[in-house]
Amino acid sequence: MSQSHPNAPTAPTAPNDTWLVDLTLTPPSLLDNTADAERLERALAAALGVDHVERDFDLLGALPEQLRAWDYRARCVWFEDQGRARLVALCDPRREVPPLGLAVDLGTTRLVIRLLDLATGNGLGETTFDNPQIEVGPDILTRIHFADSNDGAEQLQRLVVGGLNRAIVGLCAAQDRDPEDIHLVAIAGNTAMTHLLLGLEPRWIIREPYIPVVNCPGLVRGRHFGLRVSPGAGCYVFPNVGSYFGGDLLAGILFSGIAEADEPAILVDVGTNAEVVLGNRDWLIACAGAAGPALEGGVTKMGMMAGPGAIDRVTMDPATRALGLHTIGEEPPRGICGSGLIDLAAALFLSGRVDIRGKLVPEWCGEQLTQADDMLQLILVPASESATGADLTLRQADLDSLMRSKAAMYTILRTVTRYVGVDFSELKAFYVAGTFGIYIDPRAAITIGMLPDLPLSTYQPLGNSSLGGATLALTSRARFGRIDALRDRITYLELNVNQEFMNRFSAAKFLPHTDPERFPSVRVLDD
Amino acid sequence: MSQSHPNAPTAPTAPNDTWLVDLTLTPPSLLDNTADAERLERALAAALGVDHVERDFDLLGALPEQLRAWDYRARCVWFEDQGRARLVALCDPRREVPPLGLAVDLGTTRLVIRLLDLATGNGLGETTFDNPQIEVGPDILTRIHFADSNDGAEQLQRLVVGGLNRAIVGLCAAQDRDPEDIHLVAIAGNTAMTHLLLGLEPRWIIREPYIPVVNCPGLVRGRHFGLRVSPGAGCYVFPNVGSYFGGDLLAGILFSGIAEADEPAILVDVGTNAEVVLGNRDWLIACAGAAGPALEGGVTKMGMMAGPGAIDRVTMDPATRALGLHTIGEEPPRGICGSGLIDLAAALFLSGRVDIRGKLVPEWCGEQLTQADDMLQLILVPASESATGADLTLRQADLDSLMRSKAAMYTILRTVTRYVGVDFSELKAFYVAGTFGIYIDPRAAITIGMLPDLPLSTYQPLGNSSLGGATLALTSRARFGRIDALRDRITYLELNVNQEFMNRFSAAKFLPHTDPERFPSVRVLDD
Repeated sequence: MSQSHPNAPTAPTAPNDTWLVDLTLTPPSLLDNTADAERLERALAAALGVDHVERDFDLLGALPEQLRAWDYRARCVWFEDQGRARLVALCDPRREVPPLGLAVDLGTTRLVIRLLDLATGNGLGETTFDNPQIEVGPDILTRIHFADSNDGAEQLQRLVVGGLNRAIVGLCAAQDRDPEDIHLVAIAGNTAMTHLLLGLEPRWIIREPYIPVVNCPGLVRGRHFGLRVSPGAGCYVFPNVGSYFGGDLLAGILFSGIAEADEPAILVDVGTNAEVVLGNRDWLIACAGAAGPALEGGVTKMGMMAGPGAIDRVTMDPATRALGLHTIGEEPPRGICGSGLIDLAAALFLSGRVDIRGKLVPEWCGEQLTQADDMLQLILVPASESATGADLTLRQADLDSLMRSKAAMYTILRTVTRYVGVDFSELKAFYVAGTFGIYIDPRAAITIGMLPDLPLSTYQPLGNSSLGGATLALTSRARFGRIDALRDRITYLELNVNQEFMNRFSAAKFLPHTDPERFPSVRVLDD
Repeated sequence: MSQSHPNAPTAPTAPNDTWLVDLTLTPPSLLDNTADAERLERALAAALGVDHVERDFDLLGALPEQLRAWDYRARCVWFEDQGRARLVALCDPRREVPPLGLAVDLGTTRLVIRLLDLATGNGLGETTFDNPQIEVGPDILTRIHFADSNDGAEQLQRLVVGGLNRAIVGLCAAQDRDPEDIHLVAIAGNTAMTHLLLGLEPRWIIREPYIPVVNCPGLVRGRHFGLRVSPGAGCYVFPNVGSYFGGDLLAGILFSGIAEADEPAILVDVGTNAEVVLGNRDWLIACAGAAGPALEGGVTKMGMMAGPGAIDRVTMDPATRALGLHTIGEEPPRGICGSGLIDLAAALFLSGRVDIRGKLVPEWCGEQLTQADDMLQLILVPASESATGADLTLRQADLDSLMRSKAAMYTILRTVTRYVGVDFSELKAFYVAGTFGIYIDPRAAITIGMLPDLPLSTYQPLGNSSLGGATLALTSRARFGRIDALRDRITYLELNVNQEFMNRFSAAKFLPHTDPERFPSVRVLDD
């Protein structure tokens, strides 16, 4: 599958799969004196094979001059809005610059925007930036509480829209394009971020029974929230399934293709929560649970996000049991990111430095093991070699935290598959979204029992699946057309932390598991 | 038919015929965590028995607090927009003040607005004012040319919207209502006026092949053109059939009920043009022609619009042949309005003062006949008795002009009925719209051969049929639902001024006609 590669360029779109239609109208005459608007709408409806086309009132202002200047030809940008074809923009058919689209990954932490040629589907450029709302709070919960204050919600909206606008202007300038040529925008974000972007009350999202203002915002005008694109631009906001199942995940499902395949597959997106979707073309089941903290670099003392100087890969020489560290950009080590931590844990386990309970084993750790604050810790990089000038250490508490996260992850995967009676071995593909998916070594994740012991080829990094889904919505009418059906098909499985779940969780808090037969490929070095 | 009376109060609407729905929603729970918007939409769709309800993005902002404050009850104002139910406003169900509607007769010369209670359909008050665009030009043509200048179109839009807003604020203040409570507006105007109100390019309306920007503007938001009503108010603009067949006439057809009757009837609206619609529930045929100038008070030297001091009725004592004049408000005569002129011409003809060619007859006119500028003129009111301090005179040229107008009127009526093979005698009703319809004496109009010689009961004044139609759109879903079908059923008959038309016209330029057998009821006094 081409879209499974994280760095795949956006695929050129089929000519009849775009949101563009070039029309040639019959000029009016005394015998055919239909008004300009209805003339255009009828021609467009005929071209699209639909009964009716909706249009914005604002398109009427320039319409008479446009049609006459363009000799009754027009390039129409349209989109589907609540099941109806909607004319979004009219462009000069003689102009060579194509109408543009903008795909937005509206992340809590990072945003990515991608500029697209709507005619070809080709990506023209991307840019990434930190969510400016971080200045209010790094996590969604803090922001939602902040939104309750006086003009908190407006301030949060201003921050994120401001950041988007700066990025749009910068990206367009770099690509020598005009933001006014952006007529379609697709935005994939979690439910809270979507609400904050649109200026919608987020407070009930986090209060029982967890109710969003809207599930399907549909096509919102860019001017409704001040986006620096064509004023009439249609902004498609991916629908959510609920407060804890956002449009970003729906975009990911779309991008992964799992809802279009015969065989079941899994999609995992690890963030603050681990979000898991299991399904095929007939059914989809989703759940989410707290599994991520240790993997996001936020919990371990030396943890950091994937970035220059982050230890992202740890190897272990079976002959000498020596550890080899690799850093992003091959810079002096500054910390360890999620994938590095998993690699490290796997290497420590396989080399005997950590036992099956996840505890550091003094006999095997040697002089790298020290004690601080009554706790064992392993010095991974001495101060003299680190970029920070301090030892980079892995504390027993960091390991304990990782054990909980990996156990939670496995338990969620186990629970969701058992729920529908699918065995791990039946999974055709296991997609791992995000940066995490790109950097993680499935081998290491299997070794610590975080991911099931499947053939390595089953694991496929998806890259930025939110951005990928948003891109698809703009470049493929056919793929876009599946979103609503896909959304309606999702069963959300509430993870009840009951006795069965806790039993599974306890059993998964071993390396790789209390039942090693589930992980036949994991072989610890002999003593 | 109750709506045929010009001064009929607006009829109370049937409870299930309004645009209001009171909803009680199931409050959300952990097992039913649909978002607020979708919860509301589903309940509304179920209440209306439709699949889908559209809503404005702007409604979402206040929705969460409203639903919770109102215990998940809501009073919804909705309307039909392009065949779909659209939620227009949400109101507090505990509030006693009803949601309001505003019906607008958007006349070239005069505007009338009527405030309505959307719950009962009752009219709460009306106000009338001159179209402020008159300062640019009294007629549409001048205004359209003016709109071509720099910011001419914006200026014209500002003028009429400003006038409307002053009237809305005044009317609401007088009725102790809040303009913010106006959630639905229905506007009936001719095509050019509608374009000028909405800020749409009017220039192609008057240039061959006479193309409006839009035929069916549909439901426009009040804020789109700055109307001083609830910002999200839905403004229904009556569709036009073409540049010369405006929404005002469609509103009139709706109000008259001719499109809902079994037997054919005629609707005549006399303005600058005479607009004629003939039809029944199965077919409708419309045409328009220049017939009005002499009847509008703009051509005759002493002509004026119906108003205080206008001679509106002229009687003739068969015994003495003396003329009796009545003025509006019984004030000293200031001029003569259309109905008075027709009365006068009939009286002069019946008394022998005017011959069948429409010429003043010196033998019968006596000393009231004078000569000025080489032209005969009849002094109707001597200077000593008039409000102007000058003689009020009827010149031969005024009579000639009236002869042309009345002949044109009769010819149009004859042409349109012949076109579909309907005899005048088959007409069930003959509706005459506007002030003209209220003041005109059908007996006099028959006498001069302007209207066909039908039983007087056939003639029914409609009053302000544009306002009446606009009112119906807001107070009866059932009647509103007929507009589109009605519009699609109209055949517009282009009045070709060919030889046949000219022959008819010439034959009609006699009193009452060259063929007096067509007017058996008209009896001139014996010499």
